[in-house]
Amino acid sequence: MSGVWGNNIKLSIFGESHGKAIGITIDGLKPGIELDVDYIKNQMQRRAPGSSLLSTPRKEGDNFEILSGFFNGKTTGTPLCAVIYNQNTISKDYESTKDLMRPGHADYTGHVRYDGFNDYRGGGHFSGRLTAPIVFAGAICRYILEEKNIIIGSHIKSIASVSERKFGLEDLKVEKLIELSKDEFPVLENKSKESMVDSILKAKEEGDSVGGTIETAVLNLPPGIGNPFFNSIESTISGLLFSIPAVKGVEFGAGFDIAGMKGSEANDEYFIDKNKEIKAKSNNNGGVVGGITNGMPLIFRAAIKPTPSISKSQNTVNIEKMENAVLNIKGRHDPCIVPRAVSVVEAVAAIAIVDLLQFVK
Amino acid sequence: MSGVWGNNIKLSIFGESHGKAIGITIDGLKPGIELDVDYIKNQMQRRAPGSSLLSTPRKEGDNFEILSGFFNGKTTGTPLCAVIYNQNTISKDYESTKDLMRPGHADYTGHVRYDGFNDYRGGGHFSGRLTAPIVFAGAICRYILEEKNIIIGSHIKSIASVSERKFGLEDLKVEKLIELSKDEFPVLENKSKESMVDSILKAKEEGDSVGGTIETAVLNLPPGIGNPFFNSIESTISGLLFSIPAVKGVEFGAGFDIAGMKGSEANDEYFIDKNKEIKAKSNNNGGVVGGITNGMPLIFRAAIKPTPSISKSQNTVNIEKMENAVLNIKGRHDPCIVPRAVSVVEAVAAIAIVDLLQFVK
Amino acid sequence: MSGVWGNNIKLSIFGESHGKAIGITIDGLKPGIELDVDYIKNQMQRRAPGSSLLSTPRKEGDNFEILSGFFNGKTTGTPLCAVIYNQNTISKDYESTKDLMRPGHADYTGHVRYDGFNDYRGGGHFSGRLTAPIVFAGAICRYILEEKNIIIGSHIKSIASVSERKFGLEDLKVEKLIELSKDEFPVLENKSKESMVDSILKAKEEGDSVGGTIETAVLNLPPGIGNPFFNSIESTISGLLFSIPAVKGVEFGAGFDIAGMKGSEANDEYFIDKNKEIKAKSNNNGGVVGGITNGMPLIFRAAIKPTPSISKSQNTVNIEKMENAVLNIKGRHDPCIVPRAVSVVEAVAAIAIVDLLQFVK
Amino acid sequence: MSGVWGNNIKLSIFGESHGKAIGITIDGLKPGIELDVDYIKNQMQRRAPGSSLLSTPRKEGDNFEILSGFFNGKTTGTPLCAVIYNQNTISKDYESTKDLMRPGHADYTGHVRYDGFNDYRGGGHFSGRLTAPIVFAGAICRYILEEKNIIIGSHIKSIASVSERKFGLEDLKVEKLIELSKDEFPVLENKSKESMVDSILKAKEEGDSVGGTIETAVLNLPPGIGNPFFNSIESTISGLLFSIPAVKGVEFGAGFDIAGMKGSEANDEYFIDKNKEIKAKSNNNGGVVGGITNGMPLIFRAAIKPTPSISKSQNTVNIEKMENAVLNIKGRHDPCIVPRAVSVVEAVAAIAIVDLLQFVK
Repeated sequence: MSGVWGNNIKLSIFGESHGKAIGITIDGLKPGIELDVDYIKNQMQRRAPGSSLLSTPRKEGDNFEILSGFFNGKTTGTPLCAVIYNQNTISKDYESTKDLMRPGHADYTGHVRYDGFNDYRGGGHFSGRLTAPIVFAGAICRYILEEKNIIIGSHIKSIASVSERKFGLEDLKVEKLIELSKDEFPVLENKSKESMVDSILKAKEEGDSVGGTIETAVLNLPPGIGNPFFNSIESTISGLLFSIPAVKGVEFGAGFDIAGMKGSEANDEYFIDKNKEIKAKSNNNGGVVGGITNGMPLIFRAAIKPTPSISKSQNTVNIEKMENAVLNIKGRHDPCIVPRAVSVVEAVAAIAIVDLLQFVK
Repeated sequence: MSGVWGNNIKLSIFGESHGKAIGITIDGLKPGIELDVDYIKNQMQRRAPGSSLLSTPRKEGDNFEILSGFFNGKTTGTPLCAVIYNQNTISKDYESTKDLMRPGHADYTGHVRYDGFNDYRGGGHFSGRLTAPIVFAGAICRYILEEKNIIIGSHIKSIASVSERKFGLEDLKVEKLIELSKDEFPVLENKSKESMVDSILKAKEEGDSVGGTIETAVLNLPPGIGNPFFNSIESTISGLLFSIPAVKGVEFGAGFDIAGMKGSEANDEYFIDKNKEIKAKSNNNGGVVGGITNGMPLIFRAAIKPTPSISKSQNTVNIEKMENAVLNIKGRHDPCIVPRAVSVVEAVAAIAIVDLLQFVK
Repeated sequence: MSGVWGNNIKLSIFGESHGKAIGITIDGLKPGIELDVDYIKNQMQRRAPGSSLLSTPRKEGDNFEILSGFFNGKTTGTPLCAVIYNQNTISKDYESTKDLMRPGHADYTGHVRYDGFNDYRGGGHFSGRLTAPIVFAGAICRYILEEKNIIIGSHIKSIASVSERKFGLEDLKVEKLIELSKDEFPVLENKSKESMVDSILKAKEEGDSVGGTIETAVLNLPPGIGNPFFNSIESTISGLLFSIPAVKGVEFGAGFDIAGMKGSEANDEYFIDKNKEIKAKSNNNGGVVGGITNGMPLIFRAAIKPTPSISKSQNTVNIEKMENAVLNIKGRHDPCIVPRAVSVVEAVAAIAIVDLLQFVK
Repeated sequence: MSGVWGNNIKLSIFGESHGKAIGITIDGLKPGIELDVDYIKNQMQRRAPGSSLLSTPRKEGDNFEILSGFFNGKTTGTPLCAVIYNQNTISKDYESTKDLMRPGHADYTGHVRYDGFNDYRGGGHFSGRLTAPIVFAGAICRYILEEKNIIIGSHIKSIASVSERKFGLEDLKVEKLIELSKDEFPVLENKSKESMVDSILKAKEEGDSVGGTIETAVLNLPPGIGNPFFNSIESTISGLLFSIPAVKGVEFGAGFDIAGMKGSEANDEYFIDKNKEIKAKSNNNGGVVGGITNGMPLIFRAAIKPTPSISKSQNTVNIEKMENAVLNIKGRHDPCIVPRAVSVVEAVAAIAIVDLLQFVK
């Protein structure tokens, strides 16, 4: 099964890139949540294509229509379904190359998994476009969290070989995260942005693409959220992150670097702070120990691979003829999806946390 | 919920480190699997403590008893429950320090999550000991996979600051992986092992601990295993890996390094090989594209943090008195759990794959 | 959670009677099923209102639109979503009485469950109209079953106090069931129909309503389908049947009558038939023993309560004023929903069986 | 999948009648529940065999051992596993007849389902003995409910052809239900008991068996518990009831009789009672409308078939030889399991309600 997720809330996604519509049903939302539709639109806008020189010229409003579960401006508590109708799709772009399995894309694996019956146009169900409904659900969850003063924010930690510093404890202020989350290219240091943008434009010029890493923080999560073992907060978030096409690595806190530390360095020593709350002096565990939050900022990083669609000529196979072939893609593509992916990464964090927080009945 | 996992097979774990027993129930196994109990014992032995100077002196056979679902040497198809009775537990070790929240351990987060009612002795349900039943289930799954010639093997890629090379395509032979999986300290290059062992012994001497990374490969997985989005093979494996206490990072294929590549490098170009099968020239995607296997070796790495239990003095809090405190742990601990963790990492890979492969009814 | 169901296929329903649309997403369907849209329309038509004097005059085509998961006339294997847009809704009918809790309806229980935020118009999410998407999913499942020669049919066993005989083994022929399933008022004996219709028309005249019972048979189910305990075929079917608004009783085989039999009567003795297959001489167990099919016809009956909407004056409460009140409903209602419910009962049987049969990946 | 159940709590059962042990793991229990082990023992005793002339002479204490999740007299919140070791099993009773498929038992269906690999001794995993762990879990859930003053009680409504009246609203007092739940043969009228016992003893004398019906009530359930559609309270309870071997019918409120009523009779009219609470004048819906409780007593009935094990000669098939055969069973059996089944029926009601009530984290 692939399209249903969750324990306390249940998401059910559907759709193909060039079909009639894509969408999501969210079950288990608490009744009476006064949803701000503009808030959701803003979050959707962060992911939407066509907003800058850095992304695909395919302009698609990602305008959603809520079909159910929303009445008089509030959630009803029954399943909320939202649909985004597809438009501005140029299917012919894909028709001529449908038997050529694009490297890095799910063309070949989807073909095998679905015995060749999957909708291949624009990646079909595998398209990054399917993250739009996930951002929709994430926007609702984020809204629920913000009511509890739980705040999510991210920066682009690297693009190609350009990298900036990790979040320091000093960056982890509510105002700073809010500021980052309003920026369409959020970085901790402005000079990073320039070099990163240069990398992207250079790749674009070359008909190539670049990837990057996103670092995300969640503030004000109470301690005690999560579970040992199978539904640990790390399992829940990583499971969703690896659902996002292009994510190839996930780490929490110091992540892979913690493997090089000694126990005496890595252990985050506790102390009683001035508010008589238990805090840790360091945050190598990224706010999670034993699968459960410890009241420190939740920190994780996701590695995003370069957009597989590139204009450069590539070798591949023709799946019908079972022979080697050369692929030249003409469509419209993002030279780098990292800036757009920020909203998706944050969305799945919000979804995972709401599911675990059991804010919802 | 924390103790139940799976779609096609269902695992249900239970137990505390110093309670009567720990165990697991596996539902959904196909009937008629002729289980080799010695095979399972060997796998369990790989994880068992007390087998070398490098691990905790707590000697515990991890002898399991199968209570159900196994009849005349074969699985019945009904739930298979195995229990490991606890023995050789020195609870007093923990009693005196029960209010002192050990840094890096789940004492504090578990205390909050369970309102102080959790069994704190030896980490209780959070103990790494709970991975023994997981290795038991993993052994059965591994056995099922080997019948299909699907082979799992790993090497210790790093301990502390000592690191060796990643798997190259040339290492990924069945014989090589089998050889690695019989080694209790598997490395690609013998010289790595020496330096790694030195790091561990040095940390032990200092009353400290070290972590490391494990790289795992799965060979001969057919293409088409996994799903887009929520049940991608990466989501499934990473969800289980992050259930293992101490795992703080997971990456597939080139992982975080792929974020620094260009699309033209990262894309694994397909070609028809001499057996008329579709293969890729490189394996930056680690055998998975769009959440589904592509027939290349499945490759992932997990970062293991240093054992949080160390003999060095540490600052922490007394949860009852809500005051700062100093902790000195006297118990028996592993200076490095990485070698023992190899079997656990491989076990969860086997479990995840069997669940997705739907070998089982 | 209320709107998500299934293990091997997952259904996710949404919608309110007077909202924008109702619909369903079906995940887990096998790719490449060549769906006959007319076949689905015919099944939907069996449930659709307004087709005869016996049902509500609200005319609604129940025209569905498939938004995803269907490409070139075949299922893709990815989630299939179908939407039915609402039209011809006269919301004002309900507005004036929204605080008066209609007896027998879910107005009061829904109000409490959802803290008053549910869409009350026409029963909202509780409306029988939500069975339309279930019949849509059932039609697909029925189609899958018919490909395997598994045939479902029913008769109206009783309306009000008019009852006809149960299915005898002689009735349980494929042709007979197909004939019944094409009849909009299926009975075993024509004279029953007349008296039943009279009961309905009489109730209609009185501004009242009547209920009835439906008996359903499934032929050619292979033995071995189902599970002991929690996912028994009886658990699965009854769980779905009791999801249908108005069902208040479910029994399999001899059902409640078996409680009055002796073991020597009730036990269905096995024998080898002329085709060298194991069959039973009687079918008191209705084709299921130990939660698993035994190769005999699957037989069950469902009790449908009289439509709660009646024109007669009724006592109730005003939930806002918390005072007693008198309710006079003016809307358009079915004097008897039993004939329309036949298609819903059969749909859920088909869904339950497909889920258990694991025809689907 | 057959052995895992639940949303807010998860049950996982295992075991075979003549294997080493049977048991259950319960996950999701709230931490800190002060379990009274004697209370659980008393509930187990109600189901245990060998307590009277009416049941099987197999004496088995059903002594359970709690292996985990229980510390210092309270639940820990982590999975609670209890095991009942088998003893006093006379496997040879079954060995000689293992190829003869006992009519009414799951021998044949289990054989097909599990390809002949299931443990056939004493019914194996299909044995009624597996209801012991369910009663264990039910006892914990019942205890949780009683803390909230939610009370469950039943009477034996019929044995063979001897029937007594249904619960009237006047019977539905807390004291009355408690009194019934302490009686090992609970009836509303003493004279019923005599005739019922006579029926059982007569059947026993004849080497035959009898069935019956159980009517159960749950008092003080608040309104608003349950869900529309798939997780209605009726779906949840009926799903579990049909998991109990021998249950062939389930009805709520007036049940099958409601199908013969008019809407004006069947609708339970609401009024404001003297405590300013909303109540209904009648209870034909058995306390549930639209899948959700309405604050009236929850009422349901279950039909229990006669014990399939009888001493009388029966025709059947030999599954190995694929030929007709005659079966003479010599083992020890209950002439009527209805009195023992009362505790099981009540247990699953308690489990279903706790799962829906979300008392538990």
